Amino acid sequence: MPEQPVAAAPRRTAPFGDTLAARVAERESQIVLGLDPDPLALWPGVIESARRRGDVPPVQLAAIAILSHCRALIDAVAPACVAVKPQLACFERFGAPGQTVLAAVLGHARDAGLLVIADGKRGDIDVSARAYAEALFGGLQTPFGAVAGLGADAVTVNPLMGRDAVEPFVAAARPRGAGVLALVRTSNPGADDVEELELASGGVVWERLARIVDELGRPGVGESGLSDVGAVVGATAPGSLARARELMPNAVFLLPGVGAQGGRVEDLRPAFAPGPAGGLVSASRSIACAYRTAGGDPAEAARAEAERLRQAARALRS
Amino acid sequence: MPEQPVAAAPRRTAPFGDTLAARVAERESQIVLGLDPDPLALWPGVIESARRRGDVPPVQLAAIAILSHCRALIDAVAPACVAVKPQLACFERFGAPGQTVLAAVLGHARDAGLLVIADGKRGDIDVSARAYAEALFGGLQTPFGAVAGLGADAVTVNPLMGRDAVEPFVAAARPRGAGVLALVRTSNPGADDVEELELASGGVVWERLARIVDELGRPGVGESGLSDVGAVVGATAPGSLARARELMPNAVFLLPGVGAQGGRVEDLRPAFAPGPAGGLVSASRSIACAYRTAGGDPAEAARAEAERLRQAARALRS
Repeated sequence: MPEQPVAAAPRRTAPFGDTLAARVAERESQIVLGLDPDPLALWPGVIESARRRGDVPPVQLAAIAILSHCRALIDAVAPACVAVKPQLACFERFGAPGQTVLAAVLGHARDAGLLVIADGKRGDIDVSARAYAEALFGGLQTPFGAVAGLGADAVTVNPLMGRDAVEPFVAAARPRGAGVLALVRTSNPGADDVEELELASGGVVWERLARIVDELGRPGVGESGLSDVGAVVGATAPGSLARARELMPNAVFLLPGVGAQGGRVEDLRPAFAPGPAGGLVSASRSIACAYRTAGGDPAEAARAEAERLRQAARALRS
Repeated sequence: MPEQPVAAAPRRTAPFGDTLAARVAERESQIVLGLDPDPLALWPGVIESARRRGDVPPVQLAAIAILSHCRALIDAVAPACVAVKPQLACFERFGAPGQTVLAAVLGHARDAGLLVIADGKRGDIDVSARAYAEALFGGLQTPFGAVAGLGADAVTVNPLMGRDAVEPFVAAARPRGAGVLALVRTSNPGADDVEELELASGGVVWERLARIVDELGRPGVGESGLSDVGAVVGATAPGSLARARELMPNAVFLLPGVGAQGGRVEDLRPAFAPGPAGGLVSASRSIACAYRTAGGDPAEAARAEAERLRQAARALRS
């Protein structure tokens, strides 16, 4: 297993929206491969291969297996995708080896031409928010020299605490051409508990979140018309998509919930109003576990499912 | 620097509220030492000491320095405290070595008799929420054997996504006697942007969050009258504290914002209505950096400030 330091992505000065638009055009894909490796649902052969390492602690073997699984998955579906979206929780549960593996997985994804969206849904203020941004983007200076960050091209954040929980991420992202994707209207049933609450002033909570996204993103709109502050909008609530687009005309929408959570690509048309890169269709288990329903080789089944999603999304772009 | 595996806290079966109440009584303290180590604000001598390790990558030296700093801080103030609250961001920015150091710091805190509140403000659903809970609490099973978690006694979570973003943490915490502290009314100016929005049905958003906390915590109320689902309520909004206590009669309140953010212990009386452990007063920089204003030895100044806070909080308990 490779050791530290983690690899940093090359710096860019083009705004995130333009970089994303160019990459979507080049790869002819709006599909984001979610990486949420589960040690109990690894592709066949991965466990046996890791065990050949011999007498190594379980956490190390599990980390090795996760790395093999993610590499194989990326190799299988990269041609149909524009980005990977690692779910940070699934790596964090393996402690220090998990962090090492995460960096290696992201390096592998970049080598395959994919952007990296670090999905941690962080939400904090002040020094803590800046520390998260350092961890996920470009690292930090220390009295001992520079420490590299994860080099993410974009990160997901949680805006419950307000503007000052999002601004530090934007401040860190913008100068390096990276992006910030704030939770606005998520794909889970619990979205009704808070995000859908009606406000005394009119509208619902998530619409207020959308206005914050639009406001913070305005100075970051590139030539593509897309901003560097985007929104997570669940594919399971297609009724909200048109309204979300109205409130955030320049935002990149990250659209989780297709597949395992019941969302359908066909319902996502409003996301693509600003152009093909206006919507990023994220899928994890529906790709990685496609072989369980489709049968056959896991890599082949994953490739076929990613390609099916790619074509479905392409058919919708305006 | 110690290697993996991370140390797990011993399992308990007493509910979190009872464990906390007993510990607060035993230590005669409601003070939580926040750990948010900044490599540019380490205690004097720490940098020189780390440099003596010789030709080691910056990330390793920084991690060693962070560990020394946190150990010294814990040694200085532990007698005046009941728990530590590591800000996960400040360790995550050091990648894999940061995770190793975090585990070592928490082991040191436990050896000093302190509980551990992992402050990550995680908020996600389904497999992702469960993975975070595995990382922060008791680990997980893999085909290679058990992988240890961080063994936290409590964690902070973000409830923006609704009940299903909190429930998986409660489900993981309750059987092991751990606790979950959800953001309700935070200490930052941005709290006005979302948490303080007025609802069409009456009340404001944070009051709805408080109701969720109360509801999820009810099955977890111990003999102490305190629940295992608590709330983060900023010490900078003392006007909200009485209302928060009304809505969450059994919740442990984690009260950040004292000191650097302007909150005063004297304003926190309503938090302690259910008993001395009803409120946990969290302070980070006001303790670690006390020597900058008080002068003298950093450890002595930190100890004095922690003791001052301890006595101020003790004077308020009902």
